[in-house]
Amino acid sequence: MGYDGLEADLHPPDRLATAARAARSAGLSALLLTPGPDLRYVTGYDAQQLERLTCLALPAEGASAAPFLLVPRLELPAAQASPAGRLGLEIVPWDETADPYALLAGRLGPVEQVGLSDQMWALMVLRLRDAFPGARQALASRALRGLRARKTPAEVAALRAAGAAIDRVHAQVPGWLRAGRTEFEVAADIADAIIAEGHARVDFTIVGSGPNAASPHHGASDRVIAPGDAVVVDIGGTMPSGYCSDCTRTYVVGAPPREFTSYYQVLKEAQEAACAAVRPGVAAEAVDAAAREPIAAAGYGEYFVHRTGHGIGLEAHEHPYIIQGNAEPLLPGNAFSIEPGIYPGPHGARIEDIVVCTEQGFERLNNATRELVVVS
Amino acid sequence: MGYDGLEADLHPPDRLATAARAARSAGLSALLLTPGPDLRYVTGYDAQQLERLTCLALPAEGASAAPFLLVPRLELPAAQASPAGRLGLEIVPWDETADPYALLAGRLGPVEQVGLSDQMWALMVLRLRDAFPGARQALASRALRGLRARKTPAEVAALRAAGAAIDRVHAQVPGWLRAGRTEFEVAADIADAIIAEGHARVDFTIVGSGPNAASPHHGASDRVIAPGDAVVVDIGGTMPSGYCSDCTRTYVVGAPPREFTSYYQVLKEAQEAACAAVRPGVAAEAVDAAAREPIAAAGYGEYFVHRTGHGIGLEAHEHPYIIQGNAEPLLPGNAFSIEPGIYPGPHGARIEDIVVCTEQGFERLNNATRELVVVS
Repeated sequence: MGYDGLEADLHPPDRLATAARAARSAGLSALLLTPGPDLRYVTGYDAQQLERLTCLALPAEGASAAPFLLVPRLELPAAQASPAGRLGLEIVPWDETADPYALLAGRLGPVEQVGLSDQMWALMVLRLRDAFPGARQALASRALRGLRARKTPAEVAALRAAGAAIDRVHAQVPGWLRAGRTEFEVAADIADAIIAEGHARVDFTIVGSGPNAASPHHGASDRVIAPGDAVVVDIGGTMPSGYCSDCTRTYVVGAPPREFTSYYQVLKEAQEAACAAVRPGVAAEAVDAAAREPIAAAGYGEYFVHRTGHGIGLEAHEHPYIIQGNAEPLLPGNAFSIEPGIYPGPHGARIEDIVVCTEQGFERLNNATRELVVVS
Repeated sequence: MGYDGLEADLHPPDRLATAARAARSAGLSALLLTPGPDLRYVTGYDAQQLERLTCLALPAEGASAAPFLLVPRLELPAAQASPAGRLGLEIVPWDETADPYALLAGRLGPVEQVGLSDQMWALMVLRLRDAFPGARQALASRALRGLRARKTPAEVAALRAAGAAIDRVHAQVPGWLRAGRTEFEVAADIADAIIAEGHARVDFTIVGSGPNAASPHHGASDRVIAPGDAVVVDIGGTMPSGYCSDCTRTYVVGAPPREFTSYYQVLKEAQEAACAAVRPGVAAEAVDAAAREPIAAAGYGEYFVHRTGHGIGLEAHEHPYIIQGNAEPLLPGNAFSIEPGIYPGPHGARIEDIVVCTEQGFERLNNATRELVVVS
């Protein structure tokens, strides 16, 4: 269970240099990364975002300053024990009553434009603005987005392990879904299984039954599942590697609604068509269109109310987004969901797999059956 | 179990008006609150922070614009079903391919200075900077910090329920702590109990045994607990109400280290002295000093390496901080931890309770015994 590659493959020691080079190409003087997926990607350090400042200062390639990781003194042992402790990176502790923002600015020196981790809190953004009064603030994703969106073989292996884990959960769902149980009860069984199958954390457990299946971001409720319900089950978690799973299947309890069976087939074909459209060089929005066309042709276009997919990696939602307006070409290593839905009400359906763009085409990371599973 | 007050008491309908008044007093034209504790405090809406913009725009009292909650259309049913749906607040959905930042700026109109929720992502901070090119960005806490730091009776009741729940977990810890088990195994038992005793989420499960007890922010490890170990157990979670628990006790497995028993008594007296110093008008740093004095007098001052405490509420760490340099006077309704520690190595100890400042003095929200518990 879990990621079976080497930890060192997920956190190659040249990642700091690669990120520094990307910062320079993006016109940034330095990256400033607080705890979150950007910091974990660059250093492997899985720190919690809190009010005390933890921040990697990574000058762009060619700058005279050396990179350093500023941490509260209390966190020094954790930082040293993390993969960041093996990067030859100076780890600078700050004391409980010191001003870490002044310390950071003093050590880094003058900068023209800094790239802030996308999930940095406004609390830190505005204090850094004041600590670097002459510097323009931009997003670190300007430098890191392209790197993070192209998964290495080790990252794909980590996502594959996450996909297999969530597939094992879906394999158990028919045993928990039955008329008379509430969505909450089913979601609780799923949450337990997400952990039991190897995730470190449950991220979401959507169980949308009957009319709730027609609300794509419904969570779970105390609604009692009834015979004839379609049930959208969209679930995911984060593995110990940091990489995420996300997979949706729609089940039916008893005899499905009359119209449901026919549009489920349309949906299944649309999901397959979108997957088949994936290969290097194809625009992200072309994959969205490939999912949308068969649904529109069957007369359900107005009921497919969301984008076709989102990238996935250290975040459940990241670049690239598979959406109209995103003309960026897919590249080998891109990993993203393909999850069309049809929600005519008072029922609905969605099918979602994580897919990786390969040199020749695509690989699905979810392999639970997409045939309609009817639970009696 | 859990919060036994009324949901409506936790989310009084006049909170929007109170926050708008506070914004005006703080010199802010409007508050912009994305998902997180500020948004939950003002509206009761417990939304997840994701890449799609959800944002409450709350003009300061006296402004001509009306407040509105901007949400992705997919989230509209969840927003309407939340307490925010009962505030008479316009909820404005944006469509999947629209620009929500432009929509927000257009509806709100010109602003001079906006207060951003402290945990807003840099992704949104910088897009809002560009969407409001003339506006100065400040933190919403300038307006909300004073309000959030003074808990209402309903909030104190919610924190009291959280304290009782974590006390019930601590009551079970001696049954799980024994030589031969790993810190991870004990932490897993604790995590299960945090949920079983009524929390919605586990926030942290620190189990620091032997030398790890001397590292205040150690998490848990595969270290096997040995006879003679002191074990710092610092645990907390978030209740369904949104309010947090946080309580530390230090246990001993078998015969304690020679020096340990004597400094544990010093620590216990210091923690009691700090609690006894709490009353309205006393500076936060005076409570820190009250904890520090007896520890220094006994010769352990250099081993108390962190602040005495932090506020608690919808966040595990919030204002007021009980730290040297914080001269702000305590006010009735302030809720915070009092958690001195002594870490001489190769062992250490910490005792932590959540305390509320009352009109006359203080109330402890944790009541697990502070006598040394020796597990045989």
